[in-house]
This record gives sequence, structure tokens and C-alpha cells, in this order.
Amino acid sequence: MSNFEFKVKQKSKEEGCFARIAELKTPHGVIETPVFMPVGTRATVKAVEPRELEELHAQIILSNTYHCYLRPGDKLIAKAGGLHKFMNWNHPILTDSGGFQVFSLSKLNKITEDGVKFKSHLDGSEHYFTPEKSMEIQNNLGSDIIMAFDECSDYGVTKKYAISAMERTHRWLDRCHKYHKNTDKQCLFPIVQGNFFADLRLQSLKTIVPYATVGFSIGGLSVGEPKEKMYEMLDVLAPEYPEDKARYLMGVGSPDCLIEGVIRGIDMFDCVLPTRIARNGTAFTSTGKVVVKNGKYSEDFTTLDPECDCYACKNFTKAYLRHLFNVDEILGAQLLSIHNLRYLTHLMEQIKDAIRENRLLQFREEYLKKTGYK
Amino acid sequence: MSNFEFKVKQKSKEEGCFARIAELKTPHGVIETPVFMPVGTRATVKAVEPRELEELHAQIILSNTYHCYLRPGDKLIAKAGGLHKFMNWNHPILTDSGGFQVFSLSKLNKITEDGVKFKSHLDGSEHYFTPEKSMEIQNNLGSDIIMAFDECSDYGVTKKYAISAMERTHRWLDRCHKYHKNTDKQCLFPIVQGNFFADLRLQSLKTIVPYATVGFSIGGLSVGEPKEKMYEMLDVLAPEYPEDKARYLMGVGSPDCLIEGVIRGIDMFDCVLPTRIARNGTAFTSTGKVVVKNGKYSEDFTTLDPECDCYACKNFTKAYLRHLFNVDEILGAQLLSIHNLRYLTHLMEQIKDAIRENRLLQFREEYLKKTGYK
Repeated sequence: MSNFEFKVKQKSKEEGCFARIAELKTPHGVIETPVFMPVGTRATVKAVEPRELEELHAQIILSNTYHCYLRPGDKLIAKAGGLHKFMNWNHPILTDSGGFQVFSLSKLNKITEDGVKFKSHLDGSEHYFTPEKSMEIQNNLGSDIIMAFDECSDYGVTKKYAISAMERTHRWLDRCHKYHKNTDKQCLFPIVQGNFFADLRLQSLKTIVPYATVGFSIGGLSVGEPKEKMYEMLDVLAPEYPEDKARYLMGVGSPDCLIEGVIRGIDMFDCVLPTRIARNGTAFTSTGKVVVKNGKYSEDFTTLDPECDCYACKNFTKAYLRHLFNVDEILGAQLLSIHNLRYLTHLMEQIKDAIRENRLLQFREEYLKKTGYK
Repeated sequence: MSNFEFKVKQKSKEEGCFARIAELKTPHGVIETPVFMPVGTRATVKAVEPRELEELHAQIILSNTYHCYLRPGDKLIAKAGGLHKFMNWNHPILTDSGGFQVFSLSKLNKITEDGVKFKSHLDGSEHYFTPEKSMEIQNNLGSDIIMAFDECSDYGVTKKYAISAMERTHRWLDRCHKYHKNTDKQCLFPIVQGNFFADLRLQSLKTIVPYATVGFSIGGLSVGEPKEKMYEMLDVLAPEYPEDKARYLMGVGSPDCLIEGVIRGIDMFDCVLPTRIARNGTAFTSTGKVVVKNGKYSEDFTTLDPECDCYACKNFTKAYLRHLFNVDEILGAQLLSIHNLRYLTHLMEQIKDAIRENRLLQFREEYLKKTGYK
């Protein structure tokens, strides 16, 4: 029996709703999808302890290949026994390919058919990523799910450029596939590109699906475009996905996008948003965003979100959280990060309940009305 | 029966050792002494959650009157139901008087017999503390143990100045005592001053003891003097303390000083040191200080301190901790703060065992040798 399996357990019966509940088996445990994956960029989910991730029902986390490669280095992590041991997270881990960061974070990147030369955003040192190198690094990291090295084209590029980036992504995928031998322990997800051109997206999907053993990713969305543009692409793809593969929408994580994504057949999501806004003092709540720092909460002795069961909501008031942010205390970032992550894992639980009861479209309507998220 | 009681349970039988084990009863629970109190300056022990303080066996914490008065304000904390409720710590809390911070942190302080005018170190706003004001603030904070408002003179002042500060401290103590009515819920500790003059220290002790119901403090030490100077003063005082009162040495918290203090009859300690050095990447360990950031730990996959049972030591390696500090991740401060606090509560447990077995002097010798602390 394989270490990896994807099984759809239930499909929505609502018209125009592609949502489903499924199980994704990995060497470090089974994930129930749809799932939101907290991001642990540098082998740590910022300000959150691994035991707290368990407590808030995180099933799988994402870590970034580019960052781990630069510091502390993938070879060091391999020596430590892999990412799981290094960071003390004995549950599934997914890594990206490093491609997105090479293009967006690093300086003076120079792209050729072979790979990408770039300078570290930290110290300007020169590095070179190829599809093979990305596989090698991810093999060293030892994550359960690894991504193919792709070229993610920006929103607004010409169709000509989009085609060239997509085709390169496909050729690089083939090289990743050929290089990656550790298939027993690590599952390679190919990535759909094609920018914001419907025909390219469909062409890309068709090309990459044969490389998908248990799942694939949709890349190049949520890169600065209006949400409607993203939904448009997802609408084009939704009816065309193979049923028996997990679909991971990369870099998406606002609550409304999670719901819209699930309705459009997405199973997996990740985003730095919940922890990033937490460190700035903003919380998702069941009645909309709360900017905790705001002076109006200084004497608000009620809980942040009465519908939340997280450690922060069970034990502290808005007035206290506001104080922590007002005086710049680390505990504020800790508590709000826990809360925002729990908010999204809880949202996913609510979404799964709605799928089970064939009322996800209604849930979306009520949820958007109640929270004001859009 | 009073809400406050101090009972000596066992006294060291070693010659020249004034150590004892005792119980200090407060409205929020019984503390076994000798005890180290983690410092939660602004109503939070930096980077540590209250449940983690419980886990690492903190029995009581200290919070700072000056800081809480400025932000979020003692009146707000009173509205929240007091410090315990505000910060979600349902165990004993001790507050200082604000005096030390007024003299050391604030600008342009002007001292008269009535009180001290000072400017906030945050925004330069003008404030005025008197003994009565300090009591009023601490009454609002609702801490179990409160401190008399004192004038802490610097190391190196003339005897004339030391006398004047000491005598003012005594007059202010009387005013604190008269103002403080909430004796059922809050216990006032008078403070021994007298700078580094043995005769003044003894005179101060004699003067303040009648005001001590269950305990008193030794202030004005650990203010920049050589450790020997501090020990000299403690040696002068040790034989003269009343047996039946708790003795709290303010602001002292390095491991060696804790042992030396206990030997000299001290029951209570507090210090920001463990959490402050933790945030800078330095850990106390059973074999001496470890600067985790140090490059030599980058591939050290052993635990920080094999003799420690804290969450950090049970689950992470030095290499990982080093990585966290190297990339400036908050989790590093969290884990090391937990560790350093647990290190000191554990040290206190070892000290109590040594007292029970009349081998504290031997423990000191072995401990200093093993750790190199001095």
C-alpha cells in the first residue's frame, strides 16, 4: 500500500458547488480536506509553538524552500533528520519549490532554460536554482508534499510571456519528475500555470495532470489581481479537474477566499495572512475583522470572539489584548496568532459541516453577511 | 483566620547557614519559599503565557506599579477586576511601589518630603507619586503583596545622603501604613534601606520591622555594586531578622545570587534577568551559560540542558534554537524565556531539597563549580 493516497469521501450535491470532503494520506498522518495550512516560513510558524498548532487543530503546515535553503540551509536540516525533527512537528509538512520567492524576493534574478540565477535578499550572495536543485533541496528538507519548480508570471503580462512561462513550467516539471526519486516518502505536486488566460489554464491543467500522483497545485493566482479575476480562473478550471486528485490553491488564505475556493473545488490552502495580520494586531472574528490596537477596545472586557474556543478567546479580554499591542508586548503576537489560525481551522470545520449537509452556498451567503468579509 | 500567614517549616542546621523553608499564605494561594518570582513588568511576563508559567511551576509573579500606572493605567486595571483577572493569572502577585522606576527610569524627577514629581519615560508627561499615591495605585492593581514607597539611594552616595534617603523611606513607610486600608486582601511589605552602611541597614531593619505583618523587603541592593558588597550587607542583616517574617531581596535573580541569598536567610527574589537574557539568546544551563546564537551550536542536535524538564529542553535542539535566534524568530524568545524561568524555579526546588537535607553549603560549592556562575 502506498504511503500516499487521496480519497474523496463526500461530494456536495448543491448545483454549481464543486466542494468535497476528502482524505489525503501522507507518511506523517492523514489530512482531512478541505484544509488550511499555517505557514512556517523559516521552519517555525511565527510566534506559535508546535504544541499550540496541534491544539488549534492544524493538520499540516507549509514551510518555504527558499528561506530554509538560505538559513539554516537544507543540508543542515537534513543532518537534523529533516524538517519534522528539526522543528518538532510530527505531522505532515508541505514545501513550496522556492520559485515564487526567487522571482518575488530576490534581486537581479536571471532566468534561462536551465534555471534561475539570483541574489539572496539577505546578503546579496549569488545562488542558482534549477528544477533539479529545487528537488534536491526539498528532498533534504524531507517534507511530505513537495512542489515542482515553476515560473510564476505576474498579473498583467502579455499572453506571449504567459505562454513562455507556462511552457517553461511544463518543461521544468518534467525535469523535476525525472530527478525526484524519493517518491515513497515525498509526493511531488505539479503546478498549473497559465496566468490569467482561460485557454492557457486549461492547457496547463491537461499537461500537468499526468504528473500528479495524489494531487496538484494551482499557482500564479492571488498575486495582486482583483479577486474576481482569480475566481474567473478557478471557475474555468473547476469542471475540468480530475476527481481523484487533491487540488491545492497556493498562497490563498483570506476567509472569504477559502469559502469561494472550496466551492470551486479546492481542497488545500495556505497563506501567511492570519499570522501576519495577527502580529500587526488584527484579528478575524465571527463578526468581522477586529483591529485590537484600536483605542475603542481599551475598556472592552469582553472576549475577542465568543464563538472561538482558542486559548486567547477563552482566557483574555479585548482590553488586555489591546494593552499588549499598545505596549508592544510579544504575548500579543502570540495570542492573536493562535486565534487567527484557530479561526481559519474552525472555519474549515464549519465549511466541512456545510458540505456534509449540502448547504455550503447558503453558509457562504450567511457568513459573508455576518462578517462583512469580501 | 487571616488571609495572610507566614510559617517557617524547616530551618537549616548547617552552621553559618540561615536558610529555611517556609509557607507564605496569600488570598490567591500558598507559596512555598524560598521562591523566585518571574517579572511581568507590564502585566505580562514577556513572551510567556500564563499557562506556561503554571507549567514551569511559577508560584507568584511580580508586576511593576510604575509601568502599569502609565499604561494601561491602574484605574483601567481596577475596572478589569484587578491585575489577576486582567492578565489571567489566578495565583499570587506582588507589586513594587514604583519608587525604584521613578528614580531610575523617569526624567527630571524632583523629590520633596511630600513625594516625587517626574516625567514619564514614554512621553515626557508629568506625574506625581507620593506614598499615598503608590498605595492607591497598588490598591487599584489588587496585587496580594504590595510594597511601601521608598527612596532607593544609589551605590556610592555619601553617608549623609544615605541617612536622609533612609529616614525619608521610614517616614514614607508610616504614611503608606496609615493610608493602606485594604489589609484583608493586600499585605504591605516595608522596605529596609540604608545603602551600603552596615549601621544604617541595622537601624533601618529595626525601624521597619514593626510595620511588617507577614514580611518585609530588602531594597537598594543589586543596584550596580560588586556582589561582595551586597553579600556584606546581607551578612550584617542575616542574624538580626525576625524569624517569623518573610524576607524579600528585591531585584536579585542570577543563579549564584539566589543561592547566596538563601544561605543568608532570604525567602523571596525577583529579577528580569532570566527573561531579558532569554530574548537576547542566552540560556542558563546546569553546566553554565549558553549563548545559543553562537555559531558553534549550528549543528548541535543535543538538547539545551539535559537536566531540565521544560518544554524547550524536552522538544528542541540547540541547533534549532540557534536557527530561531539567527533569523530573529519570536519562537526563540518564547522557548528560551520558558527555559530560563524553569531553570530558576528548578534551582529553587534543588535549593529546598538541599535545605531539607542540611547540605545547602555543599550544594553551593558543587553548583558554582559545575556551572562556573559567580
